[in-house]
Amino acid sequence: MVGASNDAGRIGGMPLDLLRHFGYAGRVYPVNPKYEEAFGYRCYPDVESLPEAPDLAVLAIAAREVPAMLERCHARGIRAAIVYAAGFAEAGEPGAALQRGLEQFAARSGMVVAGPNCMGFANLNLHAYTAFAAVFRNVPAQTGPGRASVITQSGNVCSAVFALMRGLGVPVSHFINTGNEACVEFSEYLEYMAQDGQTDCVIGYVEQLRDGPRFIEAALAFARERKPLVIYKAGETDKGSEAVRSHTSALAGDLALYKAGFEQLNVIRATDFAQMADLAYLSGFRQRTGGRRVAIVTMSGALGAILADKLIGAGLDVPTLSGALQQALREGIPDYGMVSNPVDVTGNVVNSPQFVHAIFEALAATDQVDAVVVYAPGYLLDRMAGTLVDICARRQRLFVAIDTGAAQYRSRLVEAGIPVFDDIGRATQALAPFCQWLARQDAVERWAGLRQRTLSTAAAASPLPARLNEYQAKQLLAGYGVPTLRELPAADADAAAAAARQIGYPVALKILSADIAHKTEAGGVRLDIADEAALRAACADILAAARRYDPGARIDGLLVQPMAGGGVAELIAGVTHDPVFGPALTVGLGGVLTEIYRDASHRLLPVDAAMAGEMLRELKAWPLLDGFRGRPKADVDAACAGVAALSAACAGLGAQAHEIEINPLQVRVRGEGAVALDALMLVKT
Amino acid sequence: MVGASNDAGRIGGMPLDLLRHFGYAGRVYPVNPKYEEAFGYRCYPDVESLPEAPDLAVLAIAAREVPAMLERCHARGIRAAIVYAAGFAEAGEPGAALQRGLEQFAARSGMVVAGPNCMGFANLNLHAYTAFAAVFRNVPAQTGPGRASVITQSGNVCSAVFALMRGLGVPVSHFINTGNEACVEFSEYLEYMAQDGQTDCVIGYVEQLRDGPRFIEAALAFARERKPLVIYKAGETDKGSEAVRSHTSALAGDLALYKAGFEQLNVIRATDFAQMADLAYLSGFRQRTGGRRVAIVTMSGALGAILADKLIGAGLDVPTLSGALQQALREGIPDYGMVSNPVDVTGNVVNSPQFVHAIFEALAATDQVDAVVVYAPGYLLDRMAGTLVDICARRQRLFVAIDTGAAQYRSRLVEAGIPVFDDIGRATQALAPFCQWLARQDAVERWAGLRQRTLSTAAAASPLPARLNEYQAKQLLAGYGVPTLRELPAADADAAAAAARQIGYPVALKILSADIAHKTEAGGVRLDIADEAALRAACADILAAARRYDPGARIDGLLVQPMAGGGVAELIAGVTHDPVFGPALTVGLGGVLTEIYRDASHRLLPVDAAMAGEMLRELKAWPLLDGFRGRPKADVDAACAGVAALSAACAGLGAQAHEIEINPLQVRVRGEGAVALDALMLVKT
Repeated sequence: MVGASNDAGRIGGMPLDLLRHFGYAGRVYPVNPKYEEAFGYRCYPDVESLPEAPDLAVLAIAAREVPAMLERCHARGIRAAIVYAAGFAEAGEPGAALQRGLEQFAARSGMVVAGPNCMGFANLNLHAYTAFAAVFRNVPAQTGPGRASVITQSGNVCSAVFALMRGLGVPVSHFINTGNEACVEFSEYLEYMAQDGQTDCVIGYVEQLRDGPRFIEAALAFARERKPLVIYKAGETDKGSEAVRSHTSALAGDLALYKAGFEQLNVIRATDFAQMADLAYLSGFRQRTGGRRVAIVTMSGALGAILADKLIGAGLDVPTLSGALQQALREGIPDYGMVSNPVDVTGNVVNSPQFVHAIFEALAATDQVDAVVVYAPGYLLDRMAGTLVDICARRQRLFVAIDTGAAQYRSRLVEAGIPVFDDIGRATQALAPFCQWLARQDAVERWAGLRQRTLSTAAAASPLPARLNEYQAKQLLAGYGVPTLRELPAADADAAAAAARQIGYPVALKILSADIAHKTEAGGVRLDIADEAALRAACADILAAARRYDPGARIDGLLVQPMAGGGVAELIAGVTHDPVFGPALTVGLGGVLTEIYRDASHRLLPVDAAMAGEMLRELKAWPLLDGFRGRPKADVDAACAGVAALSAACAGLGAQAHEIEINPLQVRVRGEGAVALDALMLVKT
Repeated sequence: MVGASNDAGRIGGMPLDLLRHFGYAGRVYPVNPKYEEAFGYRCYPDVESLPEAPDLAVLAIAAREVPAMLERCHARGIRAAIVYAAGFAEAGEPGAALQRGLEQFAARSGMVVAGPNCMGFANLNLHAYTAFAAVFRNVPAQTGPGRASVITQSGNVCSAVFALMRGLGVPVSHFINTGNEACVEFSEYLEYMAQDGQTDCVIGYVEQLRDGPRFIEAALAFARERKPLVIYKAGETDKGSEAVRSHTSALAGDLALYKAGFEQLNVIRATDFAQMADLAYLSGFRQRTGGRRVAIVTMSGALGAILADKLIGAGLDVPTLSGALQQALREGIPDYGMVSNPVDVTGNVVNSPQFVHAIFEALAATDQVDAVVVYAPGYLLDRMAGTLVDICARRQRLFVAIDTGAAQYRSRLVEAGIPVFDDIGRATQALAPFCQWLARQDAVERWAGLRQRTLSTAAAASPLPARLNEYQAKQLLAGYGVPTLRELPAADADAAAAAARQIGYPVALKILSADIAHKTEAGGVRLDIADEAALRAACADILAAARRYDPGARIDGLLVQPMAGGGVAELIAGVTHDPVFGPALTVGLGGVLTEIYRDASHRLLPVDAAMAGEMLRELKAWPLLDGFRGRPKADVDAACAGVAALSAACAGLGAQAHEIEINPLQVRVRGEGAVALDALMLVKT
């Protein structure tokens, strides 16, 4: 502890106080020439005089003193350091320069440096407190081994969430505030936690992910280990994201892609501190089986309705039970109670609690639901407790209890594998993402497999020309299976006429130029050309208009297409390069209203046809493809195949295909396919 | 207490136990021939033998015994009763018959009967516990006078919310579970509470409103008294509303209208029990001035971003402060702290807390924000407490503190008029609707005035014919100022030709029939008719097509309209009759996508032009009217005038105009007006 203090209120003293207070078993060396001793530890004047090279140096010194001290630590044989000091990248250009120096030192020396501008760490299982956080002494003491880790980019958030977790009795293994992440970045901590035997879930807070691809790998490692990874991402609104940028100069990344990517990676996106703590609590029950379809059992019709509203609102299903199952439940439930789900066992449970046994047994066994939520306040829950414990000893299905009273058997229920909540809002807010997480475990493994196959089969693509016109782009895409029209490029009117004869009239004619993105605006599109005379006139018009529109544009010629006829809908399918996550695919319906309503679906690549189908079904405008109000149904399978082919093209062409947009992907009546009417590809040189 | 018991665990004993325990000062008469005494009160064999007619009879007896007992109570001179028993309207037809008997008895006798199927009441200020709820003995004791009332249609919800309120230390005046509301209905309780000096807010839960118009009056009384009325309405989802119907046979009413109506009446729509308790807590600070624009002060950039996200997400504004104000704040804040809002005073506050005084003073005085949210955990908040107390003694502006630590000065802050929260999610979830409530106080009073003027000037309308065709409907609407085309009805082709000459070609021609709602589908519309020959041919075609489409339809002739030309947008403006709230106005953009996206705005009538403007701005598709991506701006003023005229027409025509729809209301380029191209009016006979 360099810059040690004997004042527990100072950052150089607080960790020493904690190490002493909690009884750290390892050796601790305060370093400060001013003291002989601090908190009972012998104090040394400098790192050079230490009796051995410690595993870790904690620097509680000012920013400007850090570089020289790190050099001295390195020289003393110390391999790792935590730097508390603020005044680096978050503090203007002088600080940024200091941070660059730190990064260079770490790269040169091989020393592992955490921070700067961080509170440090605590390994609660080892009582290794190297964080200056007052919170450790203000929360309920931890007796058993910790199992949940909290990792945040903000010290305040780390303390606040840790306190909530401890308040719920969640045993914590690691407390980590990463700070500026100059040398050790968020996903690197995650990689460690994915394989750490003392950590079965991570509760995280990020303002930016500095290494998106590494984050993807870490998240997939969590998925493999079936450990929940819960992340709160700040910057939901423009104002919030401005505030984040202002104090971290973070790369924004697209928020919609954060949401979609987290879901795809089965990372639980938290939106509230209390919810984070509740998810850490629920993670202790992750071995139980569960999913989206929930049965609700209450003794109150009102609470049944409220819980249904809340669980459905949070994204779960409350399916109506089959007639046969309802009949079986009815045997224990009076006429005025509901059996359809929510199941209302009514106040009768007071007089004859045993009749709920058959109900719980039926709901534990049925394949119509994945999890069971039981609401009963206080003594009413106590009357059901024995039954619940008995059933959960024999069945793996997730049962969750909500008690707004003061049930005495809460801890017995928890020991039996039944999480107990005391607030309806908090219960549903945590339960919904937890059940989604349980439900998505297979999907993320499937995607990991698809991704692995895609990565391993990717051959080096032949280099692309710097600029591609529409025909070239579509030819490339067609090579990967994107459906295109049978269209022909033509250098001039004569060639166009020959092409049109081959294709057959009527045809459409377009200017062919990589420099003209807005062809219609440029007067570069003619539709429904009936014969050769009209075609030749159109050629002249289009070429003249294009030259007027952009005299400097390189014109490659003309493109002759058969007339496409009408479709049920026109989609936009595009691949962009997100600054955080890299290549990502977006699908939406064309048109100004879908833009205003921001109705689009996003995925990290690769995407197969099944995933494309999920993307389309996610669109609010999905009914338009699905026969809304008697309209014809669209050829969704063909659309999905087209989207999957776009993904394959990206994998095949590699990073040089920086952006691709198919707009529109015309989707025809079911059975008649889909076709890319226009496409654009930007090459990264 | 009829059906008294000496067992505190039974419903006939629990209230007696509570009355004795809390020391009710009035006279209590248990009635039960089995006992001499219960809880120290002398017990009587029957109501006839009571020494006086009590103010209230509480019936803790079975449903089938209730009718006869009410007759005996009435005969004994008792004027009011609470009926606990279940087994009435919620229990099938036999119960419904029993409840109808109860209603008839109450109407005949003039006796006031609360319930049935209810837990009863408690007036906590009088210690008058006539509710069988175990919760009263399980919550922190109340010392001062209660000021918040909880009124619910579910006993379980009443207990759960009351417990949360008491847990926060909110002093409660009335606890009321209304049950089936056979004779005394929810809004009647609200009317009482609006004028009750012991109640400054009501926290309510409803599954259905049985008397919408009375609810409107009660809500306006709350608005006049500036008392918050907070209502949780169950049945948000189809499943939840099915569950509500199943156990109450509730009239659904339109959920979107519930939301819009609550907002219009400045009723706070709660969505969570904890939020309800928090709003009861905040109601204690309702005298402070506040509104939508919030300044955030933190000592953590992360928390600034998080709070901005949450407050904006919950519907408030976090405006960027002016350059001058930022400069003033900067004097106390280091370079790396933010001053734009969120204001990040940084950890420096630890060392020099006095510099926040100038910051709070500036934020208390500026007209750029309405309220100030301060986040600082534990001892950091304590360091600011003195400053906050000082400023709030001199300024009326609402300051709110959030402390995720354990600040010692919390109660001092509360006494100074500063609410303190300990959870960020709960703070924002309650604060946002509370600030909205503060902000809407003037709007609801303006609307109450508009409504009063509309009601007082409404003359009896002359009776309408049972069926109105398009021309007749539009003529009626035009009489109230709805803009229409200069169009003419025509009995036959000759008359149509004359009309077209008068109007001038090109014209549009439509079938005129109150029986054919879907004119286009019936082949009853022709556009862009250029001359008389075409017109005569169109007349013949349309009449023939209409007869084919519906041989039984009464055909009134034809309607000749000038061609309308294009508009910027087409709106739908309609008035429907909600089963709960009565006449309500809906405005939306036409087209299938707006239907899929459910993009519509609703209001209770009347609506003036300013309110119509708010409705249009509420639409997600508003940008289309407002020059999205270089499109022309629409004549919004004319559209608003048209919508207001529709509202005036409803007021003028009265209840007989059961439904009216203008579809489309074409809105032209700014300055060129709006016009009802088609309209439909259904008359209630």
